[in-house]
Amino acid sequence: MKILMCVPNISEGRDLELVRQVIDEIRSVKGAVIIDHSSDSDHNRSVLTYLGEPEAVLSASKAMAATAIDLIDMSAHHGSHPRMGGVDVVPFIPVRGVTTEEAVNISNQFGKYLGGLDVPVFYYEDAATRIERTLLTSIRKGQYEGLEEKLKDPEWTPDEGPAKFNHKSGATVTGARFPLIALNVNLRTTDISVAQNIAKAVRHINGGFRYVRAIGLSLEDQGMVQVSMNLTNYRKTPIPRVLETIQSEAHRYGVNIAGSELVGPVPLEALKEPLKHYLQLHEFSMSQIIENSILDTLE
Amino acid sequence: MKILMCVPNISEGRDLELVRQVIDEIRSVKGAVIIDHSSDSDHNRSVLTYLGEPEAVLSASKAMAATAIDLIDMSAHHGSHPRMGGVDVVPFIPVRGVTTEEAVNISNQFGKYLGGLDVPVFYYEDAATRIERTLLTSIRKGQYEGLEEKLKDPEWTPDEGPAKFNHKSGATVTGARFPLIALNVNLRTTDISVAQNIAKAVRHINGGFRYVRAIGLSLEDQGMVQVSMNLTNYRKTPIPRVLETIQSEAHRYGVNIAGSELVGPVPLEALKEPLKHYLQLHEFSMSQIIENSILDTLE
Repeated sequence: MKILMCVPNISEGRDLELVRQVIDEIRSVKGAVIIDHSSDSDHNRSVLTYLGEPEAVLSASKAMAATAIDLIDMSAHHGSHPRMGGVDVVPFIPVRGVTTEEAVNISNQFGKYLGGLDVPVFYYEDAATRIERTLLTSIRKGQYEGLEEKLKDPEWTPDEGPAKFNHKSGATVTGARFPLIALNVNLRTTDISVAQNIAKAVRHINGGFRYVRAIGLSLEDQGMVQVSMNLTNYRKTPIPRVLETIQSEAHRYGVNIAGSELVGPVPLEALKEPLKHYLQLHEFSMSQIIENSILDTLE
Repeated sequence: MKILMCVPNISEGRDLELVRQVIDEIRSVKGAVIIDHSSDSDHNRSVLTYLGEPEAVLSASKAMAATAIDLIDMSAHHGSHPRMGGVDVVPFIPVRGVTTEEAVNISNQFGKYLGGLDVPVFYYEDAATRIERTLLTSIRKGQYEGLEEKLKDPEWTPDEGPAKFNHKSGATVTGARFPLIALNVNLRTTDISVAQNIAKAVRHINGGFRYVRAIGLSLEDQGMVQVSMNLTNYRKTPIPRVLETIQSEAHRYGVNIAGSELVGPVPLEALKEPLKHYLQLHEFSMSQIIENSILDTLE
């Protein structure tokens, strides 16, 4: 079976009854499976994670968004996290057997639907219509409060929906992006500069791996430091290559890796390279994994 | 969802039309998925691999066996592989969410069904009724040709079915066993004694790991040698522990590992320890693997 994942961020993290109503809309769609949801009252924001066949995920996303648009009033919204709309960001993420093109197509169908509900919609990442609209931060700059002015600028005509400020709902960013791997590596030292130097060594911006974002952090209660990373394309920058580089750089300082964390959901395919690398499997096929055989037979 | 696997060996590897009829019986059962089948004309034997929910696998196994019993005449069977019956061995293997007890229970239902078709049935491995019946080789000793005499011995009264020789069908061995991992490790040397010494170091019989069977082989056309292993319990003797021991022993001879092979189907759970070991993941949960979330929601 194909698996598309959707991780919408909606601008409500305090009224949990409202969030429950939105989640119920997803649950009501056959074939859509919610695997996680969390609400943060400081951010006043909730993150929902669901997945299934692309068509089921599209239906669930429409139902989710229609209810969230109906129930959330942005003119009364306060929270510490940047946001621009009631349905703020809706990334569609190809997990299994889905191409980027298919995910972009689903995000376009979703964007048209939301545009039809009078919400200005911008496409980002792999669905971006212009290079300046690739990054969420560029589109969201100025936030909800600056949106009325921003929409008057012809540079910021929305990709779908009216070029007119919607007081109640703000605007929505949707698109497609590759699954992101959140990998933290803990180091047996309290010297934060070691983590910071290693973060610089592996991250793209300083000359490191193309698909790595990294920062060095202190884990004071554990007496360790951490290289906290997002791997934005595990196919092109696989996990073991990054980990082995961290290992090698850490040894320059006489420091060892104390442990790692993979945070949140991970596509099975992202684990293929670690297995092949460390077990020295030159010919391993994912179809040998029994669970995959079952999924392959499901429509 | 629960996954039970069944890997019957039937005594026909030349008449592929007959084998196809047997396979069609499995295919006709809703929820049973055939993931592999192979026929060997020297052995005159076919190995079928299918899986699904336990009840579907039981139904498929009954249908498979009834047709194979009907079509295969052991009195005319010749082949180089040891065998005792038309439906020779039927192991039920718990792959996911199935206990050994459940797999034994399914094999008992299957055994009773086959006994009802006048086939003497012996339970082996985790389903064995006596310690002397644990190993297939003990039960099958004397093969089809010695079965008439063997069945006269009160020590070999079958667990199901008549204690009377069935000329056409012989006898069947069924039971439950843990999934077996076939792991080959290739070494960068042509010195067979290195592979043989390492096989001795890791295998149970010579003082090695409890759940490892191993032999040393020469791969002449590749100019390498191989430690060829079956890991019979990947939970208690996990893959990385065996591989690291081989690595360490090989270094005694100045030899490196050239590569490994995992042969045939592998349960996802068997890959958990390799991932946790080599990525140093202390807290990784299999439920983080997105494909698992989908399988968990399927009935």
